[in-house]
Amino acid sequence: MMRNVTRAGALFIDLYEIAMLRGYFELGMAERPATFSLFVRRLPPSRNFLLACGLADLLRDIAAFRYDDAQLRYLASLGFPHDFLNFLARLRFTGDIRAMPEGAPVFAEEPIVEVTAPIAQAQALETLIINRIGLQTMLASKAARVVAAARGRAVVDFGARRAQGFDAALDGARAFYIAGVAATSLLAAGRAHDIPVAGTMAHSFIEACASQSEAFRAYARLFPRTTLLVDTYDTIGGVRDVIALASEMGADFDIGAIRLDSGDLDALSRQARRLLDDAGLAHIRIVASGGLDEARIERLAAANAPIDMFGVGTDMSVSGDAPALDIAYKLVEFEGRGCMKLSPGKRSLPGRKQVFRGFHDGVAAFDVIAREGESSSGVALLREAMRAGEALEPSPSLEQIRTHAREAIATLPAGCRALSPSSYPVTISGALARYEREVMSKIAASSQPIAAMRVAASCR
Amino acid sequence: MMRNVTRAGALFIDLYEIAMLRGYFELGMAERPATFSLFVRRLPPSRNFLLACGLADLLRDIAAFRYDDAQLRYLASLGFPHDFLNFLARLRFTGDIRAMPEGAPVFAEEPIVEVTAPIAQAQALETLIINRIGLQTMLASKAARVVAAARGRAVVDFGARRAQGFDAALDGARAFYIAGVAATSLLAAGRAHDIPVAGTMAHSFIEACASQSEAFRAYARLFPRTTLLVDTYDTIGGVRDVIALASEMGADFDIGAIRLDSGDLDALSRQARRLLDDAGLAHIRIVASGGLDEARIERLAAANAPIDMFGVGTDMSVSGDAPALDIAYKLVEFEGRGCMKLSPGKRSLPGRKQVFRGFHDGVAAFDVIAREGESSSGVALLREAMRAGEALEPSPSLEQIRTHAREAIATLPAGCRALSPSSYPVTISGALARYEREVMSKIAASSQPIAAMRVAASCR
Repeated sequence: MMRNVTRAGALFIDLYEIAMLRGYFELGMAERPATFSLFVRRLPPSRNFLLACGLADLLRDIAAFRYDDAQLRYLASLGFPHDFLNFLARLRFTGDIRAMPEGAPVFAEEPIVEVTAPIAQAQALETLIINRIGLQTMLASKAARVVAAARGRAVVDFGARRAQGFDAALDGARAFYIAGVAATSLLAAGRAHDIPVAGTMAHSFIEACASQSEAFRAYARLFPRTTLLVDTYDTIGGVRDVIALASEMGADFDIGAIRLDSGDLDALSRQARRLLDDAGLAHIRIVASGGLDEARIERLAAANAPIDMFGVGTDMSVSGDAPALDIAYKLVEFEGRGCMKLSPGKRSLPGRKQVFRGFHDGVAAFDVIAREGESSSGVALLREAMRAGEALEPSPSLEQIRTHAREAIATLPAGCRALSPSSYPVTISGALARYEREVMSKIAASSQPIAAMRVAASCR
Repeated sequence: MMRNVTRAGALFIDLYEIAMLRGYFELGMAERPATFSLFVRRLPPSRNFLLACGLADLLRDIAAFRYDDAQLRYLASLGFPHDFLNFLARLRFTGDIRAMPEGAPVFAEEPIVEVTAPIAQAQALETLIINRIGLQTMLASKAARVVAAARGRAVVDFGARRAQGFDAALDGARAFYIAGVAATSLLAAGRAHDIPVAGTMAHSFIEACASQSEAFRAYARLFPRTTLLVDTYDTIGGVRDVIALASEMGADFDIGAIRLDSGDLDALSRQARRLLDDAGLAHIRIVASGGLDEARIERLAAANAPIDMFGVGTDMSVSGDAPALDIAYKLVEFEGRGCMKLSPGKRSLPGRKQVFRGFHDGVAAFDVIAREGESSSGVALLREAMRAGEALEPSPSLEQIRTHAREAIATLPAGCRALSPSSYPVTISGALARYEREVMSKIAASSQPIAAMRVAASCR
């Protein structure tokens, strides 16, 4: 399957980045070393942690990053001059990338990715990297909540139709799987990522058939262990049709589950369970779907509604309660000098960093954001992912990432893993705090004395 | 530029649709005529209307719809049998499509697209059509609010980085342009759709340069009429640097605008305007950005803040306040027989339909959802878009669609065009209401007597 970068290519970039590249080029700065850091400024109020995701796609995009002739002609049409376009034509990524592994829980202000490269190369990736990591991290983080709410019952992704576009559906299915979702309904995602696929029938099939019983009978014959959708006309009537079919088909009856897709899922699942059990069909499982989110799933699970599997669509696929992350990609170092902006509410931590996670009795107790090269007793989370433009092999398989996510989430404090808001202690190392003050003073001493000092005084 | 259908192809489909296709195939129903209707059940509370969008992409996808060998091998790996895969290999769309033109305001329950085709063909499009039309319609509808709030000031799309994926950014830029947005920052979108592009500099350029003044000087020389970002360290300090540069450069100073990206945009824009005016720089315009949505823009515009242009990112790009539509694609007719589901809260109107819009003195006064073939005094909104699998030419240009949207929105009642909630009268024709009752009675008389009558009694 072709990846997106083939389609939008290196033109998945905002005009202002190309303009800045030209600025660097004209000022002779393009090859000078810079580090940019990707991080989330604040978690959404309804997220206790984020699950890092999207690195594999990002590394593939970066390895393929280059401008083709047609793209360069488009840039020429915007007025960019010949010598600069020649520079762009040769632009490849030759830098280093350190990143949180996919499936790692991360918190606000922690670098998820740090890119160290000639500034033109690192700047060119801005829109791409924010979009790639931001989307998959957001969707994996949402799915982790849905999976937690289901308390061990399987969750299936039904969201392709409502995802915000084809990529969001495809990449979302991968992110959901990493977060513990069992399967996806989307065949393109099943094929692209080798994820289990699931799904059975829609109401239209039942309506097209002469009767619901005929539709059920056809499916029972064609698809062993299938799931029958029972709510087209009336849920309990649908359950009775399934039971009637069981007695009609006898030993040939081999249905795996029924699906409830509307109404009071708690009450209906209990009625359906009782009817099925009374008919000797205790092995038939119950799938619930229809406007589910983690809060509804948690209520159903907490009430012990006899639901064996949840099909979750829209709300998970668009991260309905938090459909964007406050994620930024900021210059933190240029030619060895720490950089930061001081705009209100948008401060960034200067310099290359590392994040250490401390554990007590196997439970994550605190994170420390430190300068790169500092040592600490915790586990260092940022790892080398690309060196001199080459991805470090072997990259983990999707199953390995999924296992890592499950194990890493399990080390978080219980409050952090719950749906209700809970905070986790993230601190800045002494060395980083000193460096931040030093950088601020230098900015104050150079171009913006009055402003920078005013801001510095109001900082932590 | 390759389109998405090339990438995910006909596998942008859920497993249950393929399973139903097999059901139709095995039951000998696959070629029998069906009509499916795409509509939004309820508008989001913060939308007074939706702007239909995405039809051009949909028609292109449908014309290209087919399974290639690799996709068929994947389906074989899922257990689908040879004769059915042969059927899929030959599957092409040969049906008819009637649709609201792009840029038409639409309301709840009104068909946006109606597909009439052999049922297997029409069913196969379900996930594709919901995703394509749903996303672009959602984004165009959001942008229409942002444009209205700006009261004639230009709005520029800065949202590519936070859009939910590459498609969402690319297709979003097109939808925003249709809704009246002036330009996009995303070069891939500018190139793909021939939309104006805009953008200047980020904070990183200023931080990388030895000083803000140096960064401004470089841009002023390289990019005539550029916009300088003034808030990296302190907004008013940045404005003073622009003014100092003007006096330094004299006649060579040719800056178009400054951009404020943080802080109290109302107060800062007034201070900046005064400083610029006092320095004889009344021609320099002010661009505002940073977490803007239609409510903030409306407040700034209502207060007459001296802002000439708004850069809008995240909230518009993900339709933050309503990140999904309750959009469905439902079987409404099979072999000439009306179909509907009766699931609570998810009822669909049976049969092929037409929507008429009535006007009083040039202002839209009411819509009537009628049966196809009914005549009415209003304007018929659904038009033939594809006949026997061939798109009807010529399709309108993006500029024509944009003009149509502007003119059609202008005919809506003022309350409808405002940001605060307002309802618009949409009724069902007498013939459609009778047909609905007739279909319900038939369902009641056939497979589901008790259930259907119970639901029918509670319907309008």
